[in-house]
Amino acid sequence: MTHLQAPASALPLDPCGKGLGAFATGQTGNNAASLQWNILREDVSLPVAVLREARIEHNLQWMRRFIDAYGVKLAPHGKTTMSPALFRRQLASGAWGITLATAPQTQAAYHHGVRRVMLANQLVGRANMAIIARLQADPGFDFCCIVDSAANVDQLGRFFAEAGQTLKVLLELGVPGGRTGVRNADEEAAVLAAIARWPQALALCGVELYEGVLKDEAAIRALLRRGVTTLQGLQQQGQLADGTAILTGAGSAWFDVVAEEWRDADIGRPLDVVLRPGCYLTHDVGIYKAAETRIQTNNPVARDMHASLLPALQVWAYVQSRPEPHLAIIGLGKRDAAFDAGLPVPASYYRPGTAAPGTAPAHWQVTAMMDQHAFMQVDAADDVQIGDLIAFDISHPCLTFDKWRQLLLVDEAGNVTDVVGTYF
Amino acid sequence: MTHLQAPASALPLDPCGKGLGAFATGQTGNNAASLQWNILREDVSLPVAVLREARIEHNLQWMRRFIDAYGVKLAPHGKTTMSPALFRRQLASGAWGITLATAPQTQAAYHHGVRRVMLANQLVGRANMAIIARLQADPGFDFCCIVDSAANVDQLGRFFAEAGQTLKVLLELGVPGGRTGVRNADEEAAVLAAIARWPQALALCGVELYEGVLKDEAAIRALLRRGVTTLQGLQQQGQLADGTAILTGAGSAWFDVVAEEWRDADIGRPLDVVLRPGCYLTHDVGIYKAAETRIQTNNPVARDMHASLLPALQVWAYVQSRPEPHLAIIGLGKRDAAFDAGLPVPASYYRPGTAAPGTAPAHWQVTAMMDQHAFMQVDAADDVQIGDLIAFDISHPCLTFDKWRQLLLVDEAGNVTDVVGTYF
Repeated sequence: MTHLQAPASALPLDPCGKGLGAFATGQTGNNAASLQWNILREDVSLPVAVLREARIEHNLQWMRRFIDAYGVKLAPHGKTTMSPALFRRQLASGAWGITLATAPQTQAAYHHGVRRVMLANQLVGRANMAIIARLQADPGFDFCCIVDSAANVDQLGRFFAEAGQTLKVLLELGVPGGRTGVRNADEEAAVLAAIARWPQALALCGVELYEGVLKDEAAIRALLRRGVTTLQGLQQQGQLADGTAILTGAGSAWFDVVAEEWRDADIGRPLDVVLRPGCYLTHDVGIYKAAETRIQTNNPVARDMHASLLPALQVWAYVQSRPEPHLAIIGLGKRDAAFDAGLPVPASYYRPGTAAPGTAPAHWQVTAMMDQHAFMQVDAADDVQIGDLIAFDISHPCLTFDKWRQLLLVDEAGNVTDVVGTYF
Repeated sequence: MTHLQAPASALPLDPCGKGLGAFATGQTGNNAASLQWNILREDVSLPVAVLREARIEHNLQWMRRFIDAYGVKLAPHGKTTMSPALFRRQLASGAWGITLATAPQTQAAYHHGVRRVMLANQLVGRANMAIIARLQADPGFDFCCIVDSAANVDQLGRFFAEAGQTLKVLLELGVPGGRTGVRNADEEAAVLAAIARWPQALALCGVELYEGVLKDEAAIRALLRRGVTTLQGLQQQGQLADGTAILTGAGSAWFDVVAEEWRDADIGRPLDVVLRPGCYLTHDVGIYKAAETRIQTNNPVARDMHASLLPALQVWAYVQSRPEPHLAIIGLGKRDAAFDAGLPVPASYYRPGTAAPGTAPAHWQVTAMMDQHAFMQVDAADDVQIGDLIAFDISHPCLTFDKWRQLLLVDEAGNVTDVVGTYF
């Protein structure tokens, strides 16, 4: 099954871009290796966001094995990277489709060849509905979104009835104190009644939830079981549209528990269980590292792989000032890396002209960030000079990707092997 | 004096972009009005970032009058917007040049016609120096950067000597506990000695500081006076290169105090006092509103204008779920608006089909944001429906602009009058 046409795209080399090397205007070859850029040789303007090729590949294969072991499907959340080149690799590694958060994200993915999108969000507003309707004019485009209110259902029904199209929808379950999703049976009934008002325009295909709003595993398992029983009820009451039903959940922190709970879900008809983690591809050293520790401890499939996800996204930056003995100012700011779930963590350092990078001392610590600067605490005796390169691991890949219009794939020697564009 | 060539640029309409209306592929007219988009008519995909045209113009004229009253020059910090279309308006409104933070930002500005750039940062690293050297090959490009260490000076001297170019530099003054900049006379002497080693490659043109690292007005005034005495000393000792000297400071919070302190600076030779606020153009309802209150109270020129800067940047988004009586989930996330210096503030609301927007009740309050969602607290009795449009004011324009590749200029009726691209 092919969900994408691989466009013969040029490298996204923008003469106004950051984190790129020197290139002649108009140079847009498809072969990044021909650029002969190396981070350590200072061919590239820092700061730069890099993806470690070997680790990206490792993470892709790790998730493929995980998904295969559970016999479930993967629709990685594309909002994390919004990078079609990475979507292609995820699909080539067995992903069933791509999950997205907004209509413009869906449009960007479609434009780059993605042909199956799950919008893990309500579709609201005339222009957003129009974007989806335009894409649905392609019969090869498979799309569904989620609904949690009769008001939204009626808006969708009216729009897609006028458009002469059918929109596939999933009922979203939510929990009190959570985000979106119906809280109880009454709300669920109201949504279902609304869907029934638009039999031509709307097709109810399954159930969706996002367990990541909960922090407690028992509560998460209870929500997941509610997902199964709700879907069984819809099947028994004949409320599902024809075709394979969908049961979908799983952010990047609890996908193992979702796989465990749902691997044997039986609703009496063909069912696709679809998991939607997005951050596994790059992983991190913050919020998702913490989740990974739990997964490696608790999940038998993950344990049997004898390998965990590896942090693959880094930002390299220069030491640009050493104004005080304990302070290095780094050319890395809130414009370059996420800062909302832990500040960047010094991982390795390199002085131009020396043999190889070293591991950053554990006492180097980013203590604050401004728009274009980071404050890194060092020891007075540390040999930290202006012009040294430092690689920072990050926490929260989503809010790091969206700072970059292109990222560089690099090998472990710092050679640039590819350039991938983003579409935020 | 013309610092820019106005390129006959097409509107930045990206088929993969967010916050745009429907358009035929390839539609790139120069005339936004011909698009006939209106926010309230739902012609545009929300969320969308908009600039209120009348307020942008008001703020441009406010700052022009302020600068003229003090007889100082303006090089607005372009990192705020990174929007060449806005740079052009700032230059057309009397700005002397554009301030930027990095070499790639400088390249993007040059590419769009800006011909005078002050890099309010150290220039570090081979590729970054190469970017500047390429731009300096144009004799019509006027550039300077700042230095605060002998190590950086020697790196610059070596590079630009090899390039056969002269780089204009400003000595940066800093304060203990601050960011970059020399802390004392010894450090200053070391930097000056280094500059003297590269008489062909480096030209010392003046003194720079950023008073925004301090919070106390008396300390700020002391630093500003140190700037003047330092520059006087450089002049007396014959350490300045030929030409008009530069004395520059001022972020967006204390520019009035800088203007007051420096309006009469006399160093015995021609001098350009250059202020660098960036956020005046859009202002905000958070950190810069607080600064403005102080300015309106204390600064006689600002008081005499009988007008203050006005918040001009908003993000419109949809109510997409009403899952609980006191909660509305908004289709607006960390991907769309700054969240580091106060969360977005509901300003007005509009229900499609009604006559005109209303003012958002004061009790509506954003309490949390996720990547693609905001949690807005409402009263159970409030008439807040899915599909309603809400305009949010923001705090910290810099980190809102960098979430958007294009923003829409709108009139007060919501008509889109222009589309401006950004280059982050």
